[in-house]
Amino acid sequence: MTQLFAVRMDVALPPDMDPAERADLLAREKAYSQQWQRSGHWPQIHRCVGEYANLSIFAVEGNEQLHEILWGLPLFPYMTMTITPLAVHPSDIAHS
Amino acid sequence: MTQLFAVRMDVALPPDMDPAERADLLAREKAYSQQWQRSGHWPQIHRCVGEYANLSIFAVEGNEQLHEILWGLPLFPYMTMTITPLAVHPSDIAHS
Amino acid sequence: MTQLFAVRMDVALPPDMDPAERADLLAREKAYSQQWQRSGHWPQIHRCVGEYANLSIFAVEGNEQLHEILWGLPLFPYMTMTITPLAVHPSDIAHS
Amino acid sequence: MTQLFAVRMDVALPPDMDPAERADLLAREKAYSQQWQRSGHWPQIHRCVGEYANLSIFAVEGNEQLHEILWGLPLFPYMTMTITPLAVHPSDIAHS
Amino acid sequence: MTQLFAVRMDVALPPDMDPAERADLLAREKAYSQQWQRSGHWPQIHRCVGEYANLSIFAVEGNEQLHEILWGLPLFPYMTMTITPLAVHPSDIAHS
Amino acid sequence: MTQLFAVRMDVALPPDMDPAERADLLAREKAYSQQWQRSGHWPQIHRCVGEYANLSIFAVEGNEQLHEILWGLPLFPYMTMTITPLAVHPSDIAHS
Amino acid sequence: MTQLFAVRMDVALPPDMDPAERADLLAREKAYSQQWQRSGHWPQIHRCVGEYANLSIFAVEGNEQLHEILWGLPLFPYMTMTITPLAVHPSDIAHS
Amino acid sequence: MTQLFAVRMDVALPPDMDPAERADLLAREKAYSQQWQRSGHWPQIHRCVGEYANLSIFAVEGNEQLHEILWGLPLFPYMTMTITPLAVHPSDIAHS
Amino acid sequence: MTQLFAVRMDVALPPDMDPAERADLLAREKAYSQQWQRSGHWPQIHRCVGEYANLSIFAVEGNEQLHEILWGLPLFPYMTMTITPLAVHPSDIAHS
Amino acid sequence: MTQLFAVRMDVALPPDMDPAERADLLAREKAYSQQWQRSGHWPQIHRCVGEYANLSIFAVEGNEQLHEILWGLPLFPYMTMTITPLAVHPSDIAHS
Repeated sequence: MTQLFAVRMDVALPPDMDPAERADLLAREKAYSQQWQRSGHWPQIHRCVGEYANLSIFAVEGNEQLHEILWGLPLFPYMTMTITPLAVHPSDIAHS
Repeated sequence: MTQLFAVRMDVALPPDMDPAERADLLAREKAYSQQWQRSGHWPQIHRCVGEYANLSIFAVEGNEQLHEILWGLPLFPYMTMTITPLAVHPSDIAHS
Repeated sequence: MTQLFAVRMDVALPPDMDPAERADLLAREKAYSQQWQRSGHWPQIHRCVGEYANLSIFAVEGNEQLHEILWGLPLFPYMTMTITPLAVHPSDIAHS
Repeated sequence: MTQLFAVRMDVALPPDMDPAERADLLAREKAYSQQWQRSGHWPQIHRCVGEYANLSIFAVEGNEQLHEILWGLPLFPYMTMTITPLAVHPSDIAHS
Repeated sequence: MTQLFAVRMDVALPPDMDPAERADLLAREKAYSQQWQRSGHWPQIHRCVGEYANLSIFAVEGNEQLHEILWGLPLFPYMTMTITPLAVHPSDIAHS
Repeated sequence: MTQLFAVRMDVALPPDMDPAERADLLAREKAYSQQWQRSGHWPQIHRCVGEYANLSIFAVEGNEQLHEILWGLPLFPYMTMTITPLAVHPSDIAHS
Repeated sequence: MTQLFAVRMDVALPPDMDPAERADLLAREKAYSQQWQRSGHWPQIHRCVGEYANLSIFAVEGNEQLHEILWGLPLFPYMTMTITPLAVHPSDIAHS
Repeated sequence: MTQLFAVRMDVALPPDMDPAERADLLAREKAYSQQWQRSGHWPQIHRCVGEYANLSIFAVEGNEQLHEILWGLPLFPYMTMTITPLAVHPSDIAHS
Repeated sequence: MTQLFAVRMDVALPPDMDPAERADLLAREKAYSQQWQRSGHWPQIHRCVGEYANLSIFAVEGNEQLHEILWGLPLFPYMTMTITPLAVHPSDIAHS
Repeated sequence: MTQLFAVRMDVALPPDMDPAERADLLAREKAYSQQWQRSGHWPQIHRCVGEYANLSIFAVEGNEQLHEILWGLPLFPYMTMTITPLAVHPSDIAHS
């Protein structure tokens, strides 16, 4: 059964990072994210307005897979993660 | 154009609330929530595991409508809100 | 596959609670906890020294089951929860 | 319809930044800010007394535009943002 | 010379307050606020979306007058205040 | 009329700062501070015991002047400020 | 030798306190405070603008006397204290 | 071998507690504390100046005994505990 | 008698650390951890999902030994520790 | 009369500090600490288990001397201090 998690990722890149290194890093991050979006494990990614941060929903087999996906993010060493396991809400019309 | 917001609602009901009053309050909350879910303005509601809290996504016309919906929640006087305006993430495959 | 979670529960009972009501509540809490310990879903419970708090490990099917167990705690309305999803650590000799 | 947001921006420039680079950065920041002030999207900017920070009001089409403006700030990589969506207050005489 | 201050007021009314007492309190608060808005000392009041809070700008003679206005709020005993003295921002086109 | 403010300044100098640069910076800070003390605008400065911090009282024309003084501190780029506007206390015997 | 301390006192009176009890409490607080002001041990008391709080300076023989004075405050059970021991600042012109 | 712990206890008694009940509670707390002081398990207790709090050192057999002592405090239901396990410091002349 | 402690270790390695130095450091960390796991003093180590952190249980002779083990960690200079002494929980079926 | 203070010192040395410089710094710190221990002004120093921190008790003439001692610590530029003035506790059997 699929497990849902909300993950907020706050990114702190050093402002003086080499532009080419930065561009490469962001390109790899984007490709990595889109691969997991296409596989259905990362069904939502939203930009938090005005912040270098995103709020995402993951749909995974369990804790191990979520860790594997997040740990593999090219930007992981620059990120602070806030992780919230989710369950079905009793008022959710999709589950009534 | 529709605006997206993430809202986390933490609920603190007094443990000694009258059971009938509590049941009525929760019934009204559920009905109110489901009405806005059905209208499409509250497309997601998730229970935060192990907490009396939910993480929701709202899709509204703008700030005024979001405030109107949240302010009208029967549980509003017992809630602490954390509100995050959302925008399209450049890596989102739904917008590529 | 079993999912592991660490859960810290901080309890705040009103000091003026009726002693009989309190004794009954704690007896129900203990019975409830021990039922889930015996089923194998709550394999560890430790008292945090000097605090009305415990640190527990849960082994569950997933987020839904963890929520169901925690939500059902007789002391739940008096508790603040801190929940940490766990995965295998690469240095763990039990998994080498 | 115009959406209002309060944004507090706290700036942390490295004290040993090259003076010419710093002067250039601040000149671009000022020009960028004034362009959005003139367009009416950034109607207020106040210095927070004694701090390298400002408190601003933005009037935008919605979340996307606010993000675009803030993300484009030359000082963005050095800023911490606190964003508060605003609505009409029922006591506001301008809306009575 | 007029001094500007940003004030965020967070309101915490007891949910079980007597409805008539509450209505009277809110009516007095509104009248009090509008009197100071009309005099020009409280030029802006915004609702913070989804919260029982407002973000206001005050234009006063100085610290004493600001304190007098805030201390006199009928809701003052239920409020938590965050106060930020403001000055002219060097990028503000209104002062260039 | 004079406005009073309490300002706590926490200083964080890089431990590896060049000693001559550091000595020059501190000498300029001292001279700057004493100039404003002599003018009567900085009537009190206290060392916070055991911390690289001071607690000061400023007596200024208003917010603009306070900002101007603080912004001009040679140590400003290394400081975190906490600013509290002050008013007459009704129990103060100096104002009875 | 006299020891200086800065003390910030935040007051939280229950809004529904009996008015006569409250008036009596505040009268005793004022008398108590003024007695220590007149003795020279409480040389400064400032209202923090917009808050039910004061920032005070005490000049006492040492820790014991400061504790005795604060503990004896009629409002002590309703106060949260922040205490900062002070020493002479090397830039203070009063000590050069 | 004896284990040392630093424990800070912050006390929050309801201001409207019945005076006789309060006096009885405090008398029992004092007797209980002094019994453990005399046994050598609570070798230090200091009042934190200006606060209803103490900082204590405990010398116990281990975690179990520390928990037993703290849990048995008559004021325990009104206390917030901060517990720091201590070890020998390599600069301590008593252990050189 | 064995003492139990929960320890959460948050790791912050500089992203630009030399890869060989990093690999060597992590190899030494793993060997060091596994040596204490094999001796029975470090019976549990869990990865916190999505974070460079672990939650561990230690079973040691007392405070001195726990400090010795943690202080000796090759990653210690890069870690922030949160330490919770544990005792037997009265509901634990393993101790009934 | 002697004044007591509890001081917690948290140390943050850069992990890449030159080993010889570090050794020299720590040797000077140890000698400095032991000199004040021998003089009786620093009667207790405890290691906080698992942290680069100590909890100390100082017995000094007053605030000035405490500041002088702490400011002179070779590690001072790398330390964060938490300072608690202490007084006699009414339950202390040493003062009954």
